[in-house]
Amino acid sequence: MSNSFGKLFKLSTFGESHGKAMGGVIDGCPAGLQLNFEAIQTELDRRKPGQSKIVTQRKELDQVEFLSGIFEGKTTGTPIGFIIKNTNQKSKDYADIKDTYRPSHADFTYDKKYGFRDYRGGGRSSARETANWIVAGAIAKQLLSDIKINAFTSSVGDIFLEKPYQDLNFNLTESNIVRCPDDSYAKKMILRVQEIKKQGDTIGGTITCVAQNVPIGLGEPVFDKLHARLGNAMLSINAVKGFEYGSGFCGAKMKGSEHNDAFNSDGSTKTNLSGGIQGGISNGMDIYFRVAFKPVATLLQKYNTIDKDGNPIEIQGKGRHDPCVVPRAVPIVEALTAMVLADFYLLNKSTKL
Amino acid sequence: MSNSFGKLFKLSTFGESHGKAMGGVIDGCPAGLQLNFEAIQTELDRRKPGQSKIVTQRKELDQVEFLSGIFEGKTTGTPIGFIIKNTNQKSKDYADIKDTYRPSHADFTYDKKYGFRDYRGGGRSSARETANWIVAGAIAKQLLSDIKINAFTSSVGDIFLEKPYQDLNFNLTESNIVRCPDDSYAKKMILRVQEIKKQGDTIGGTITCVAQNVPIGLGEPVFDKLHARLGNAMLSINAVKGFEYGSGFCGAKMKGSEHNDAFNSDGSTKTNLSGGIQGGISNGMDIYFRVAFKPVATLLQKYNTIDKDGNPIEIQGKGRHDPCVVPRAVPIVEALTAMVLADFYLLNKSTKL
Amino acid sequence: MSNSFGKLFKLSTFGESHGKAMGGVIDGCPAGLQLNFEAIQTELDRRKPGQSKIVTQRKELDQVEFLSGIFEGKTTGTPIGFIIKNTNQKSKDYADIKDTYRPSHADFTYDKKYGFRDYRGGGRSSARETANWIVAGAIAKQLLSDIKINAFTSSVGDIFLEKPYQDLNFNLTESNIVRCPDDSYAKKMILRVQEIKKQGDTIGGTITCVAQNVPIGLGEPVFDKLHARLGNAMLSINAVKGFEYGSGFCGAKMKGSEHNDAFNSDGSTKTNLSGGIQGGISNGMDIYFRVAFKPVATLLQKYNTIDKDGNPIEIQGKGRHDPCVVPRAVPIVEALTAMVLADFYLLNKSTKL
Amino acid sequence: MSNSFGKLFKLSTFGESHGKAMGGVIDGCPAGLQLNFEAIQTELDRRKPGQSKIVTQRKELDQVEFLSGIFEGKTTGTPIGFIIKNTNQKSKDYADIKDTYRPSHADFTYDKKYGFRDYRGGGRSSARETANWIVAGAIAKQLLSDIKINAFTSSVGDIFLEKPYQDLNFNLTESNIVRCPDDSYAKKMILRVQEIKKQGDTIGGTITCVAQNVPIGLGEPVFDKLHARLGNAMLSINAVKGFEYGSGFCGAKMKGSEHNDAFNSDGSTKTNLSGGIQGGISNGMDIYFRVAFKPVATLLQKYNTIDKDGNPIEIQGKGRHDPCVVPRAVPIVEALTAMVLADFYLLNKSTKL
Repeated sequence: MSNSFGKLFKLSTFGESHGKAMGGVIDGCPAGLQLNFEAIQTELDRRKPGQSKIVTQRKELDQVEFLSGIFEGKTTGTPIGFIIKNTNQKSKDYADIKDTYRPSHADFTYDKKYGFRDYRGGGRSSARETANWIVAGAIAKQLLSDIKINAFTSSVGDIFLEKPYQDLNFNLTESNIVRCPDDSYAKKMILRVQEIKKQGDTIGGTITCVAQNVPIGLGEPVFDKLHARLGNAMLSINAVKGFEYGSGFCGAKMKGSEHNDAFNSDGSTKTNLSGGIQGGISNGMDIYFRVAFKPVATLLQKYNTIDKDGNPIEIQGKGRHDPCVVPRAVPIVEALTAMVLADFYLLNKSTKL
Repeated sequence: MSNSFGKLFKLSTFGESHGKAMGGVIDGCPAGLQLNFEAIQTELDRRKPGQSKIVTQRKELDQVEFLSGIFEGKTTGTPIGFIIKNTNQKSKDYADIKDTYRPSHADFTYDKKYGFRDYRGGGRSSARETANWIVAGAIAKQLLSDIKINAFTSSVGDIFLEKPYQDLNFNLTESNIVRCPDDSYAKKMILRVQEIKKQGDTIGGTITCVAQNVPIGLGEPVFDKLHARLGNAMLSINAVKGFEYGSGFCGAKMKGSEHNDAFNSDGSTKTNLSGGIQGGISNGMDIYFRVAFKPVATLLQKYNTIDKDGNPIEIQGKGRHDPCVVPRAVPIVEALTAMVLADFYLLNKSTKL
Repeated sequence: MSNSFGKLFKLSTFGESHGKAMGGVIDGCPAGLQLNFEAIQTELDRRKPGQSKIVTQRKELDQVEFLSGIFEGKTTGTPIGFIIKNTNQKSKDYADIKDTYRPSHADFTYDKKYGFRDYRGGGRSSARETANWIVAGAIAKQLLSDIKINAFTSSVGDIFLEKPYQDLNFNLTESNIVRCPDDSYAKKMILRVQEIKKQGDTIGGTITCVAQNVPIGLGEPVFDKLHARLGNAMLSINAVKGFEYGSGFCGAKMKGSEHNDAFNSDGSTKTNLSGGIQGGISNGMDIYFRVAFKPVATLLQKYNTIDKDGNPIEIQGKGRHDPCVVPRAVPIVEALTAMVLADFYLLNKSTKL
Repeated sequence: MSNSFGKLFKLSTFGESHGKAMGGVIDGCPAGLQLNFEAIQTELDRRKPGQSKIVTQRKELDQVEFLSGIFEGKTTGTPIGFIIKNTNQKSKDYADIKDTYRPSHADFTYDKKYGFRDYRGGGRSSARETANWIVAGAIAKQLLSDIKINAFTSSVGDIFLEKPYQDLNFNLTESNIVRCPDDSYAKKMILRVQEIKKQGDTIGGTITCVAQNVPIGLGEPVFDKLHARLGNAMLSINAVKGFEYGSGFCGAKMKGSEHNDAFNSDGSTKTNLSGGIQGGISNGMDIYFRVAFKPVATLLQKYNTIDKDGNPIEIQGKGRHDPCVVPRAVPIVEALTAMVLADFYLLNKSTKL
């Protein structure tokens, strides 16, 4: 099991969705950072279930309790231990999947890998784990207060926000429940999710993230390129199927003469198809990338599957699940971005004499 | 600098394209593996420059020399040190870029991060580094001899191989110089690269990779999911802008009822939009993913850029460069895939009692 | 900060003695291990304060609460999160050392390194951290149930248990409060500690540890030799000043013809000055080593020191401290030994084909 | 296999004594360090065989060849690859130990762990590996040019240099072949080694190392305490059986009132039984420690042992071996000390805001 992320700013986590608590250890946060605890809780609230009509109606307080590493409101340089208690587990909802493998879930693979599994709520494979990441990410954001990280919903199903990010007002992201910083697209997306929910179905989507004011020089070639670590982080989020930065998959269709970013005399570039990263190192331009989320696998419909012994079985999907994971994943994308940048920010301190 | 990859099967590398040699240390390869040295050299030959008319005409032997860790043809369990000498460096080609920042290269970022740079041939940012990966990957392939890893060129510019991989004969991949396992598409792609080359321009493309016969259970949640590490690896290759596996970005447009992979009674699935991975762990189905490469930034044209002091300067692109990086990147994608799978194969040995 | 230990069996910890809780994450414990929770608590009780008249009279329950990674009494292969609440902190005891640097404590170095410190009870530098290690070690012991690990007090001050370990009955270790498996020496040692305690002074000592029935092959050359990692572990315990294994410092006076361990025909050796390890790898013979503990720095006497500004200040030592750290350190030495062996046991699974 | 050392200043090595070359990769050395190549070679010459009449008469040039990471004499921040060719292997010397297990060597354990071994010259278990460490250590020394690291022979057999290090002139260490900075003791030690050599026997000894002018704040609690990492490093050297720092094993006999180091008003301490480290962090005082080396196991005598099948066999020790490993280990101890300090120096850059 590999439950740690980062080299100098490092998070190690634990927790199953229906155990006593989620939690983790943040190791390597520099001493002397005055923490804004409300801001941390605000980030948790952006992720928490039950926050709107288009997300799961499960209610969890998602309140973080810090156990160490902070003294008189400031980080001490020692590890920050924290827990988030699980308060609203309805394990009964899962009793009937105990011996069943739900399609496109981790039930089958966990059972095969580990010999058995904590089947309640997906156990360790639950996206509830991401609450831990929010905590570490919120602290990383405070460590990097000059950097602005903004993620937003850029598509739901086939509804795409067809505007360059430069034309968006990121202040609007939190103004609607789908977290799309454009009211008219947001309305369409919300409607789409509501339709899907009524059908007991789910739908995928994408999130775009923009990191601005990133110092030049972050990223460590050759196996810790900035975009490679961002990709690694994003692909760690449940349901993510793809990652692209800068020109991304579109760039693969282009010619070099179209794709190259010409320099201005100050070292900035006239275009930014590179996505703010050259050779794995930030160049001072905006970093932007896009993350693809598949539709949630849990449907509130009848479906056929197999049990542990390979017998066919008909299941009625129950529980309280998200019809679309994207709105709640926006703060998760931001949190991981902050963690990656914080780690590279610290690593960069020893780059040159 | 982060020049190591893998946890148990671990490669640490060094080398600049115009230094004395590239090389590395492979640590953690189990003892007792009878090595096929010809097969290793064959993989290097698939990557080497000068192999065909559509790749760079630079000539390098790319001959690997093993220095340790092998006795009487077998791995001993001790680290395998190796070097690949650089034999055909024309440092003069680079003298005039010494003080220049080429657009969309790593010149600017290396200079800013490290204070100065080895400007010859891109120094450490050169794709020549990938020769090291080929060596480790070729050994990983031999370690995992039951697993079949096949990468191929799936697009060049806007020419897409529009066939599902199941309809392809991977034995044809090496039958043409663009490494597309379909003759008719291959011809179109080759023509396209030749046109682009005549223009002194370059073009992007994509590579698809399929890993078959992968045992169930590889991958380590939550921060070393199999697809996350594959993504990390692919995004480490020079010029890569995106990674998607299974349904990928298309999956983000779908509904759960369309996307879920129903089980057969033997635990295999009727469809495989999941791409052979559930919850970060291989499920025994084919693993497949797609990697996007931007066009090479070095053009054999005149272009404007800046020098170190921000002065505008006109440059005439010279040297011997690839018009399209994709054909030579096919074995690199396979090598990294093998390294990732080898690492998870070893890590999986301690998963359960 | 480096708060993780181990590669595959890995513990990451947090906690200050006067914060809310100590705790940690055990990552990499194989799935399917049936845990004996009483045995874990028994180990904690061996370390806990207040257990006898010769240790600190502070009372802490030291009750571990597991939060994850265990289902129906068995490890699931996912990370085991746990906390140990701090119940009996008397922060007032420390108010007057807030601005003072106690001699031979970590007050001065923490302040200089981190800019400030959580001064209550030594903060992160408190030996209370070792309670976390006991938890992980107790699980490691259960993972390695065939291996017998026995530590004991082998000296207090200048009272040395002058018997080879082969002549001792390890079952007697827990029969007295100083943890010396020889009644007559134990009595002398206890008397010595009591005398010292009356003086408000403290005293050092040594612990010897013997690991028996260790499989051949544990240890990873060249930078993770078995004895090097054991040494690293032991030197991580508060107050430890030295480590030696096998012949140790005495071996440095010997001749090769005296020191070499001749083989029996079954591969065992007639003598064992090597201490069960050759070339960093266990050879199947008993592993034994000795650990030196300095006297606890906190005295219940008046002493002179300086405050943060370098002003001389007279302090009256207060609080509840151990006159001799050795009896409570015995289970800590065993716990770390078990963790090291568990890690190498798992690492050894990928050594050969 | 664990062939890497360090976190930010990291060395990964390879090589068997009778393979083509030893070598390694130094990753994480900051960019911009002007290297003194002669100084590096001087360190290698201090370790090399054949340097005097009291060491092995094997002749090796031990010339390091740098392959990367250096440009125009300065480190570039990219990995420094290097090799040291093996020039004087006499593999025939070892043909007759192919199927034999020499007492107190790693022959038996390597065979059992890996299934077979490269028996020539001890293969990977050879102390020739330490030449790699010298290279990395010599660079670390140049990185930390303000810190003075002096190791010296403090005992050979039962001849102990009975002077506090403060009374020694470290400039004398290189003035004699046993590397003892006191002429009169040096003479006795040299005589002792010569006697032992004549007998075809070997003898142990100790090395003391002093690091002066170390900045306050190096070392990372709790699992990377400065002394714990130093201990780990020293115990990685072939033949080392023990490590102690500051008061060491003597400290275990003392009382707290004797052992505590009282402060001066400037934060320095009146005594230094702590050995320059408090709570795992350097306090600005001299760091000093002692390392115990057992006698070399290879004797030039007849002895009895077993072959692979457990049959008794009589062996005549041959080859060219050190009668006492200590004089050549002095630069190795210094090199590892420099590497540890360099790593902590870089790690300390991210400790506080």
